[in-house]
Formats: sequence, structure tokens, C-alpha cells
Amino acid sequence: MLTKEQNALLTQTEPGTPMGDMFRSYWLPALLGEELPENDCPPVRVQILSEHLIAFRDSEGNYGLLNEFCAHRGVSLWFGRNEHCGLRCPYHGWKYDHTGQCVEIPSEPKDTGFADRIKLKSYPLIERGGILWTYMGPPDQQPPYPEWEFIMVEPEQTFASKRLQGTNWLQAMEGGIDSSHVSWLHGDALHHDPLFKNTKGGEYNLKDKAPVFDVIESPGGLYVGARRKAEEGNYYWRITQYVVPSFTMIPPRGDYTLHGHFWVPIDDTHCWAWSYDYHPTRKIKPEEREAMKEGRGIHVKCKPGTYLPVATKENDYLIDREKQKSGAIASGVEGIGMQDASLQESMGAIVDRTDEHLVSSDKGIIMARRMIFRALEAMKEGEMPPGRKPEDQHVRSAALLLSGDQNFEEAAAEALRAKKGMEPATV
Amino acid sequence: MLTKEQNALLTQTEPGTPMGDMFRSYWLPALLGEELPENDCPPVRVQILSEHLIAFRDSEGNYGLLNEFCAHRGVSLWFGRNEHCGLRCPYHGWKYDHTGQCVEIPSEPKDTGFADRIKLKSYPLIERGGILWTYMGPPDQQPPYPEWEFIMVEPEQTFASKRLQGTNWLQAMEGGIDSSHVSWLHGDALHHDPLFKNTKGGEYNLKDKAPVFDVIESPGGLYVGARRKAEEGNYYWRITQYVVPSFTMIPPRGDYTLHGHFWVPIDDTHCWAWSYDYHPTRKIKPEEREAMKEGRGIHVKCKPGTYLPVATKENDYLIDREKQKSGAIASGVEGIGMQDASLQESMGAIVDRTDEHLVSSDKGIIMARRMIFRALEAMKEGEMPPGRKPEDQHVRSAALLLSGDQNFEEAAAEALRAKKGMEPATV
Amino acid sequence: MLTKEQNALLTQTEPGTPMGDMFRSYWLPALLGEELPENDCPPVRVQILSEHLIAFRDSEGNYGLLNEFCAHRGVSLWFGRNEHCGLRCPYHGWKYDHTGQCVEIPSEPKDTGFADRIKLKSYPLIERGGILWTYMGPPDQQPPYPEWEFIMVEPEQTFASKRLQGTNWLQAMEGGIDSSHVSWLHGDALHHDPLFKNTKGGEYNLKDKAPVFDVIESPGGLYVGARRKAEEGNYYWRITQYVVPSFTMIPPRGDYTLHGHFWVPIDDTHCWAWSYDYHPTRKIKPEEREAMKEGRGIHVKCKPGTYLPVATKENDYLIDREKQKSGAIASGVEGIGMQDASLQESMGAIVDRTDEHLVSSDKGIIMARRMIFRALEAMKEGEMPPGRKPEDQHVRSAALLLSGDQNFEEAAAEALRAKKGMEPATV
Repeated sequence: MLTKEQNALLTQTEPGTPMGDMFRSYWLPALLGEELPENDCPPVRVQILSEHLIAFRDSEGNYGLLNEFCAHRGVSLWFGRNEHCGLRCPYHGWKYDHTGQCVEIPSEPKDTGFADRIKLKSYPLIERGGILWTYMGPPDQQPPYPEWEFIMVEPEQTFASKRLQGTNWLQAMEGGIDSSHVSWLHGDALHHDPLFKNTKGGEYNLKDKAPVFDVIESPGGLYVGARRKAEEGNYYWRITQYVVPSFTMIPPRGDYTLHGHFWVPIDDTHCWAWSYDYHPTRKIKPEEREAMKEGRGIHVKCKPGTYLPVATKENDYLIDREKQKSGAIASGVEGIGMQDASLQESMGAIVDRTDEHLVSSDKGIIMARRMIFRALEAMKEGEMPPGRKPEDQHVRSAALLLSGDQNFEEAAAEALRAKKGMEPATV
Repeated sequence: MLTKEQNALLTQTEPGTPMGDMFRSYWLPALLGEELPENDCPPVRVQILSEHLIAFRDSEGNYGLLNEFCAHRGVSLWFGRNEHCGLRCPYHGWKYDHTGQCVEIPSEPKDTGFADRIKLKSYPLIERGGILWTYMGPPDQQPPYPEWEFIMVEPEQTFASKRLQGTNWLQAMEGGIDSSHVSWLHGDALHHDPLFKNTKGGEYNLKDKAPVFDVIESPGGLYVGARRKAEEGNYYWRITQYVVPSFTMIPPRGDYTLHGHFWVPIDDTHCWAWSYDYHPTRKIKPEEREAMKEGRGIHVKCKPGTYLPVATKENDYLIDREKQKSGAIASGVEGIGMQDASLQESMGAIVDRTDEHLVSSDKGIIMARRMIFRALEAMKEGEMPPGRKPEDQHVRSAALLLSGDQNFEEAAAEALRAKKGMEPATV
Repeated sequence: MLTKEQNALLTQTEPGTPMGDMFRSYWLPALLGEELPENDCPPVRVQILSEHLIAFRDSEGNYGLLNEFCAHRGVSLWFGRNEHCGLRCPYHGWKYDHTGQCVEIPSEPKDTGFADRIKLKSYPLIERGGILWTYMGPPDQQPPYPEWEFIMVEPEQTFASKRLQGTNWLQAMEGGIDSSHVSWLHGDALHHDPLFKNTKGGEYNLKDKAPVFDVIESPGGLYVGARRKAEEGNYYWRITQYVVPSFTMIPPRGDYTLHGHFWVPIDDTHCWAWSYDYHPTRKIKPEEREAMKEGRGIHVKCKPGTYLPVATKENDYLIDREKQKSGAIASGVEGIGMQDASLQESMGAIVDRTDEHLVSSDKGIIMARRMIFRALEAMKEGEMPPGRKPEDQHVRSAALLLSGDQNFEEAAAEALRAKKGMEPATV
């Protein structure tokens, strides 16, 4: 349970807020590469951390992420023409390059140097792993480029999607490190989802619905360990990775791909739910990739040409009360992603954490909040928060069988670090 | 005319408001029985007096009305699975019985008694006359079950419906005790509606458009008497019943059924308009019941599977300007219920009563407001408001012909009390 | 660049605001004549300067513009029946004449004179040039009827339309006196629009994209002169008329009609964009009139039976990225009117003028603001603002070729005044 002030501190990310400053200290996923598919393609509106931005890809392939509005009289550059290494406002022809520098004002005499003095706020935008990343903090504190394993493997080994969620980022992230709800909410997926079904691990998940949690601090965040009963006094361990502030990675099952999420605030009542799947040592099979595109596994079916889910609050998330009654689907909502999203949206856009009752299985959530509070305090003293260093990002989730007296931290130490060519630890 | 403060006092019903406290001292209609048609059927969201609640019917037929959100992390229990005498949240499987008591937390050790200490806010929900009633006040002040005649007769003798209205409860209720507007707004119904047309009373209504009002306090509210000219110095009297805070009953016509309304605040800008029809001594005929279901009489045609009217502000209430021009329908809007609703919504969600001009025919409204103000004052001293006692609810509206020197209060004394087997007084 | 306070001063026009008072000192276009096509036709809701009004045309052809809501209990008179020289509220039959005087209250005794004491707020509404004009200021300060040339010529010589715009009036008006953007934003129209294409003037427009501005005060506002290079040291001059507060007139081209706009605040975030076309000495040709109705030239295609554009923010203004890429249309949006509207709406409902960068081509805008500020100051001292006198309204825009040393003010002096039968100055 948080105080009202604590809840506000964690959930508000506008410019000038402490949590907004923290988010602005990382490389954040801003767009899918497919949104800017070629040089001189149309610009795309981007809203992150309550800032209105415009992204474009110039004639030479440079990516730009600028303040959305023309410096002259405030027209949205979404109407801009992307031409000859710049975005030109169609109102009076002012033109900006990918750094936000104004390079031409047709109505002004060229010799005054007026255009040179006009520069839009802009942020670096780089491509890595099929995703365009931005860093919105002070230039002199820019961290190294991101090195999450899912963007460092070959393109054939990875897949990412994004979808709009009508909630604050925090309650989405808290769902992501909540290893306990899978047995309830996503039980159906362990039976039927083409990217989850019929694994030994899934069986343990379904059998023991009272996992015991063991959460340990990691260099960049937390190892959220959940222990379930297996055969003969052994335990089935699932260790979720959490890296501050909003990277999560779900433990794998069988030979399926590894997966996880990024939750990026759009504003305080909306976030992008980024979902990735990858395998460290093999290609994603065509039928797997097809299933991901169709919204199976942790991905979500969206309206064509958009990143807006087909199932929404307005259509009651297409709930199927018959399937719920028969026990086929616990909530009656289809799909892992929408199961999470529907429940999280039902909490209200910013859940009231002054009126919650956390239990032992929420240990990951409790410790993640504490970690963020501590990092916010440290930032006041000029310290950088965890999760910025590449080594903080070289993480993997893991699932493994251990005997009763084995400590997961030791036993899984290697499995929890990303290492090129190393097989994932999975059951 | 009210002051701004008086208007706020009467129209605000959130928890903690004086008017909210008054509403919370009664049994209020919360749902139609048909909304929870069988044991273990899907739960239903209910919003009353600005509180978000969830209603369900358990495996043994008990009705529950609980806080909508799971105590754990705030998920809406609308997604809950109704199973084995409880509603189970699909996120982590927390289960609640119909009293709001948490009976299972699967992830927690059973012996800690943690679940026993979790109880959602809940209100009693009982069935009477095909309607589910709730009492949202302090348990030790719960009044006896409601005894309105329309819920005490046999099911074959009664019919009820509800519809959403986009206004505060008060301007809806004020329409309900306004016996003067029928001659104008609903004139067409007296000619053509299958549940109103061609009665002697209707004729008097249409002929004399300047009724004289005589309003008298009753044990639970008001007798709103309206006198119109009849033959040979006689008067046609219509006496509307008003019982505090929001029960109204329209005087009957010919052999048709008796009818009236309850207006229940959803929040301060929406209310449920409950409409009932019944006959104290005979069954409702099949063709009458069919007409009521189709939205004739005081009922309203709703979108299939909902309680939302087909005619809305967005479609201009399907106004027919030709019928208005020809004089067939005064406002051009079809149906008694939508005629009222459309005009009341056009006043704005909460009408500005600092800028009204009441006249003698508004005497019922003026006295009803005074009565509520007095009751609110009395509540400060610990007194209960009128309308809670069963005898306050044993009322009937009446229509009768009286000679010029007859006092309606005496002449209609018996007719204004509900009495099993007694014929209604109607013209 | 303005301060926040200055921006608020110019953009807020509710009752009681200084800018609202200024707008209320003029005859403003309120409805198209076609909206009240015949005596006793249905009434029409009108919102101007944040006031909710109802317009109707009585049995004798008088126009009324009244407070929208019945004085009794606040019902919208949009539901009123227009009958026998009055609008009758359908709730209780109160009836008002076109001056707002209550002429009948059926439920009240006639001899009390109560109705005589009820009068709705009302404004004069007169027809001139196919447009209904209202004056919303103090009756004793009512100016003479409007005498803009487009409403003084024969009906065959003029055409007007209106469309909703989702912005404050000021950023719309500022687009109207911005003679520089045509070369960019509307370049396509100079090639293809049936009401603009292929003129000598258009060619100069397209060739010289850096016009030099010369802005001079006129009796009622400004002459916004823009000079572009023509042959042999000559200049192509375009002189836009601006009359305080929101009348603008675009310089003509070739033999086409003259045209311009009125921008009338609905509330602070919406305005009506009025667009007119006329010719001082000839009829509008049938094919021209047809093109105007279809939304060509400065007019806009609206949804049938409404004044709401087909192209909206929700459908991305039907932007055609292919046509933008090919250079056929600078912004990709079809039509002069929607090109302006889409960009102006993209600035946000009230553009933030504390964060703009005006340049020399914005001289008209800068001087117009100053003129309004000065007029607002003068109003404090009891002076009337410019633009109210008929002679202030006898203006015409003009386009002409001048030699390098010619002063446009002298050379165009006659051309800039409307004079019956005089040919327009156009190139």
C-alpha cells in the first residue's frame, strides 16, 4: 500500500517530474522500425512521457525525433513533406533536418541567418533490433546504446510488437513481474496457445497455484524467483527478470521462445506495451512468427494498420461468458496480452494504491517499488539509476528444476546472464 | 427558484453528502430481476449514488452487491467467475461470497487467516416484485423491506422497466410530479397510445389546460391534486402520489393500469428512470404487457440487450418535425417516456434552478423541495426522513369526479391508500 | 510572440470578456438564410460567443434569436413548436414571440399579467445578402446594418457558405491575412482548382515565394500588401483587406470572383468559418456556383445536411501521402479550405502564442493584433472600435502590377474601395 503522494511520485512522468527524469535517463523504445519503413516516408506522430514529438527518416536514412510543432506558428509537422534531407512544413515551407535544425525559411532573406537560429527540440533516434530507440535526457548524460539480448541477436531470431494500453505504465509493469497470476489468468494459454502449450513447466504452473516467492536484487533490478512443487521434493523455479524502470522478462517454457515486455509511458493514463519474443540460439520458426503476428502468445491482435487492440473496453473485450463458465478461460477474454490489459484497464487509468492489499506473492512488486524510490532518492544526490549500463541489460529469465536445498541465486547464476550462443535454461 | 447552494444540496448524492445520506436511508431499486436471471450467471456492474458496485447471484440463489474492485490490486470483479457460491477474481483467484467476505486466496497459506480479514464493502440485495432492492445505509438503521403495492401484487399483475437518463435525478423526479405538462407534452398519447388512449379522464385532460393545483402533505410525501373542469360544475381531480425522496405515481385513466416511477441517482449527472405498471385487481393483459415491452405507455424502447434508449441526444431523439408541425405530437418526439427524457436532458445535466420561473402549477415541485429541505434539517438532529415506513408506501394515485364543493382530501382519502383487492379510483 | 495574458485577452470571447465585448459591438453573421428557409420552419440552435441561442422565423417572416432555454424550467426551445407568430415550449406550452416576449402561459390565469413580465434575452436578427446577421451588444449602441459589398450586390452575384472549425477564431483569422502561405500550401489550387487555376497572378504567386510585405492601416483595419517580382522591374502586388475584428478579403485573380472570410467565435475552441465569393459587376456562372457548392475554391465539402466538413482530424483529413510525395499537393490535403483548417486545427484549439517565431511575412498578423489591443484599450475609455461604420466596410481587395517606384497605397487607393459597378482590380 502506498500513500497518495507515493503513488503520484511513481506514476507521473511529465517533464519536470522525478519519475519523468528517471525515464529520461534511459534509451526507450519509441517506434517499431516498420513505422518508418523507408527513406523519405511519411512522418509519424510520437507521444512519450507526455511530450508530443514527430519522427521521420530522411533521404539518407537518418532518423529524426523532433518537437511536433513548427517553430514558426505551431503547425503540426505531421503534415510536413519529407524531402531532400528534411521535413518541410507545408504552411510556409520552413524546413528542418533530422537534428531539428531549421535549414530553410523561403520567405526570409537568406543572408540574415535567421533560420540558423531556429532549432526544434530534438532527441536522438537510433535503430537497434528492428526498434527505434530514443534518449530524452540531458545530452551529456547519454548512456551507451541499449544491449538487451532480444535486439542483439540476428533479425531471424527476434520479433517485437507494440499495443496501446489505457493505463499508467506502473500497473502494466507490475503485472509483468507478477509471476503468480499466470496460473489463474493465463491457465488456458498453457493448454492451447501455440506459443505456450503443453510443456512440463506449464504443468507445474497449473498444478501448484501457491508459488513461494524469493526476490533478490540484481545489478539492474530484481530476480523475481517463484518456486512451485515438482516431483520428489524438487522445485520448479521460474525466475523473472526486472530491470529498472520497466523492462521485464518472463521465464521460458519448453523449447519455446523467450519473451517479455517494455512499458513506456505515453502520458500518465496511457502506455505502450512493447512485447518481444526471441530465441538466443535458433531462428523463430515461420509458424511461430505467423502466430506472433496474429496476436498469439504475449502479442495482441490489433486493428489493421494500427497498434490499437481489436478488443477494447467499449466492446467488453469480446468477453466469452460461456468459455468462462466452462472453465476454458478464467476471465473469458481471449489471449494472454488482452487478459492482462483488460484487467489492468479495469482498475482505472491509475489504480488507487492507497487501497490495495498486497500479499506474499506480491513481493516482486513491493521490492520493485522500493528500488525505484531508492533510485529516485539517489538521483537527488546526482547518482544515476540502475539499468543504464549494458551489463545491467545482459539478462535472461530462466526456468529450472532444483532440489529442495538448492539456492536459486547460485544455481541459476549463469542462466540469468545473457551470453551469446548459450542455450536458455528452460523446463 | 433556488440558490446555487440549495440546488447543490438537493442534487449531490455522493457518499458523505446530506442528500446522499438521505437516499442511503431507503431501499432503492438497483437491478431488474432479469439482469441476474439464474444462479451463477455473469455478474453485473451497478453504479448507484456514485458508488461502483458489482451484483451477482450465487450458486444457492443469494444475491450479492459488493464493491466492484478486488481488494487485492483493484481489478474489476465484472471479470469475475461466478462459481460455487462465490465470485472469483480471475487475476489471482481471490474469491468472495455474497456478503463480500473473502473466502479464498489461493496463493496464500490457508492457516494464516489472512483471507478472513479481507471483506469488501457490501450491501444487502433482495428480490421483491421482480426487482432487486438494496439498502446502502448503516446496517443498524435498515428499514423494513419495501412494500409498494406494485411489488406486492402477483407477478401477473405487474411490469417494470428501467432506462438510463442523462440528467440529475431531481429534474427527472420534478417532471414526475408535474401533473400539468401532460395536457401539452403527452397530448398525443391520450389519443393514440395503446395504454392511454380514449378515456373520459383523458378528455378532461385535453380540454382544460389550466388545471388548478391543491397540494397536501401526506404521511410519506405529498398528494399533488390537480383539478380540471368537468360537466355541470363538477371537477375532474387527478391526485399524484409523491413519496420522499423519489417515488411518484401517476393517476390512472379508464380501465388501464396504474403506473409511476422511481428515479435513482447513478451519479450526479445520470439517473435510472424506473417505470412500473400494475393493476391492483386484475392481470396485465398479454397485449398490454407486449406494448409495455415495446416501449409504449410510460416505458421506452431500448437498444437490444441494454437499458439505453434508442432515441438519444445524438440522433436528435428521432424528432419528427412533420408530426410536430401538424400538431400530432407537441414536441415531435415519440413516446411519453422519451418526451419527458428529451426535454429534461435538454435542460443540461443539472438544470440551473437559480434561473427558473415557477408558477402556480409548479406547486407540487415547490412543496416537494421544501419537504426534502425539512427532512435534511431533521436528519441533522438524528430524525429519520419520511417514506421509510411500510405504511408510507401503501399509497395509490387516484382520479375522480367531485362536485364543486367537495374537498379531495376527504373524498379521496380511501382511494389514496393501497388496499388489497380494492378497485382503483379512476375515470 | 505574445504573453500568456495577451493571448488570453485576444482569444476569450465569453460574455464579460473585453474581446467578447468588442465582438458584441458588431453585426455578426449568425446563420445562412437557408437554415430558416420559410415561415414557421423548425427552430435552429445557434451558439455564438459562448452563448446558447435559438433562432426561428415566425409566421410573418420575422426572425427571432432568443436565449435557447424556456424561462419556466429551462427546457431547450429547440423542441419548440413554431406556430402562429411564436415559438411554443412543448413542456407546458409557454409561448414566445420573435422578440423573446412571453405571450402565453396556458396554465396561468390570463388576468395576472404574469406572462407579460417574462421576456427571454434576445438579439435582433436580420437578413442581408442571404445571411442572417445579429448584433449582441447594448441596444443603444447598435451600429447601422452591415454593408459589405458581397451582401449588397444582387443575389445572382454572390455566394456564401459556412463550416465548423475546431479552433479559436484568432488563429483562423490570422491564416486569412497571411498572404504568404498561398504559394506553399495552396500552390496546387493555382494549377487545378476550377475557381483559381491558370491566371497570370497565380504564376507570379508560384514563382516568387518570398513576398515582401507592406502593411498599412486602413479606416477599418489594414491593407496587407504583398509584393512579388514581375517582369522588367515591375511588381505584382496583392492587397488583402482586413477589417476589425475578423473580416478578411483575399485579392482576386484573373476574371474569377472575389472572396474572403468572416471568422465568428462559437466558443473559445470553435469558430464558424464563413466563406463568400462574389463579383461586383457580373453574375456568378452556373458552373462556378456548382463548384462552390461542391466545396471547391475556398469552400469546403460538408456532410450532407450539415456544416461539418467531411475531412476531419479523426480521418486524418483524408490526407493523400502520394500526392504530397509527388509534389502535387504540399500538405497532401485536398482543397484550399481544408488545407487551412487542417493545419490550424493541428496547432491545438488555442495555439500557444508564447512560443511562436514571427518573421517579416507575418507583419499583417503583428499589426492586426496591435490594432485590436489598441481598440480594446480605447473601449475602456468608451470609444467604439473600428469596423462598425458602413464606410469601414466598403472595401475591396485588389491585385495589380506596379512599377518599382510606385507606392501601392496611392496607386490602389480607388481599387481598394467598393464602388457599385466598378470593375475589380485583378491580374
